[in-house]
Amino acid sequence: MTADQPIGIFDSGLGGLTVAAAVRKLLPNEKIIYLGDTARVPYGNRSPETIRTFAGQDAAFLISKNVKAIVAACNTVSATALTHLQEQFPGLHISGVIAPGADAAAGARRIAVLGTRATINSGAYVQALRERYGNELEIITKQCPLFVPMVEEGILDGPIAREVIRHYLEKIPEPDTILLGCTHYPLLTGAINEHYNGKVRIVDSADAAAADLKKYLEQAGLPAPADSHGSLQLYVSDIASGFREQASRFLGTEVPEPGKVTLTD
Amino acid sequence: MTADQPIGIFDSGLGGLTVAAAVRKLLPNEKIIYLGDTARVPYGNRSPETIRTFAGQDAAFLISKNVKAIVAACNTVSATALTHLQEQFPGLHISGVIAPGADAAAGARRIAVLGTRATINSGAYVQALRERYGNELEIITKQCPLFVPMVEEGILDGPIAREVIRHYLEKIPEPDTILLGCTHYPLLTGAINEHYNGKVRIVDSADAAAADLKKYLEQAGLPAPADSHGSLQLYVSDIASGFREQASRFLGTEVPEPGKVTLTD
Repeated sequence: MTADQPIGIFDSGLGGLTVAAAVRKLLPNEKIIYLGDTARVPYGNRSPETIRTFAGQDAAFLISKNVKAIVAACNTVSATALTHLQEQFPGLHISGVIAPGADAAAGARRIAVLGTRATINSGAYVQALRERYGNELEIITKQCPLFVPMVEEGILDGPIAREVIRHYLEKIPEPDTILLGCTHYPLLTGAINEHYNGKVRIVDSADAAAADLKKYLEQAGLPAPADSHGSLQLYVSDIASGFREQASRFLGTEVPEPGKVTLTD
Repeated sequence: MTADQPIGIFDSGLGGLTVAAAVRKLLPNEKIIYLGDTARVPYGNRSPETIRTFAGQDAAFLISKNVKAIVAACNTVSATALTHLQEQFPGLHISGVIAPGADAAAGARRIAVLGTRATINSGAYVQALRERYGNELEIITKQCPLFVPMVEEGILDGPIAREVIRHYLEKIPEPDTILLGCTHYPLLTGAINEHYNGKVRIVDSADAAAADLKKYLEQAGLPAPADSHGSLQLYVSDIASGFREQASRFLGTEVPEPGKVTLTD
């Protein structure tokens, strides 16, 4: 591996662009190659075998682009296929979003993990939190299935966002820390913060995954040179209507022209 | 075909149970076999070829159960694969939900068709309405992507439903008729009716599909005998958490124990 190779990030869809945005912000000199498997999104309702197969194909595509490290910016893949990926591609650093998210929750006493049905049912966040903080930490988990379609509709504040957030959060005891266990949820940070009047710390696994990647690159002596121009290349397996609008929302800025790839099914 | 054979109904998931409920109500003596391809739901974001393959497998399963007619209780299949199914299985009556829905809209002057992104983008309802009513009819189409996840969460009224319905409907001119172009939407009839203060006629393609089936059975001399006991058998390709609750919501009553089937991918 050399420092001037790009970083690979993949997700089942476009939500992982929140991770790409966090990496761009923290590591502005890096070249990023993002793959969204938009033809087969969502992965959450598929069998573990299928998820592992798809994740392997995603990683193989990024490796063909000569990446120096990969972030699986997808909670489903992180929960189901990460170890498998690391075994399939030894010698390459492949990280996920769950362990960094759990790391970033240090200091919490009562934490609420919000996620999709699949992520919450996987138990992966609870396991990662227990491994780190033992039984002292009080953990509340809450499935919030309407958050993803709401964010994909561009509804990030206003009466619908307020009512939907209240619907999920008024049923759980008030935590001191919220862990956003889904790549779509960082876009709701403002509205969730408003729900709690700013009294609750919100930990975002996108930021945590970017910090984790930075640490690895520094340890491995692989950060891009300070005079290197950062960039983002985007690949997707399907371009649906509204693609550009959605992708820009997750990235927080205009997206470059995407390349279309076929991942063997 | 004989009158005592069952009727087959299939959908990509459980939403088509609203059609099964309408058929049960209108044709209480019929034996119904319902197949929900819950392992591969939703069909809407797949290619036409894949949708045709899946629909062919669904129909073949019902045919193996000796059905006398099939209703494709799925807008995506009705829009994409119905003609193909009818060619694949000649001699068997296979109907969908779009033509019956368009028939039931007779008398409208300004109609709003509500549906998922995939259904609206297919243009199938507009085509069916134009074929029947020409250019005199004013047609408004509106994608309502939050309706399905909202119904699947069991949110059918209250502040969230009110705000979401307002979000979509306040942007379109007030129609005289609403056509519910998705099997999930009949559960929102009450809330949509409330939005318009009962002033707008709501046409439901589930009821329309049941009426269409009744007409066919009568023409073909195939209605179940009046002394026959109606029944419902349920098959699904995957049983996820919350299955029973969701299925009951669409059916409007407790669901029987489902059989699990494997549809070859």
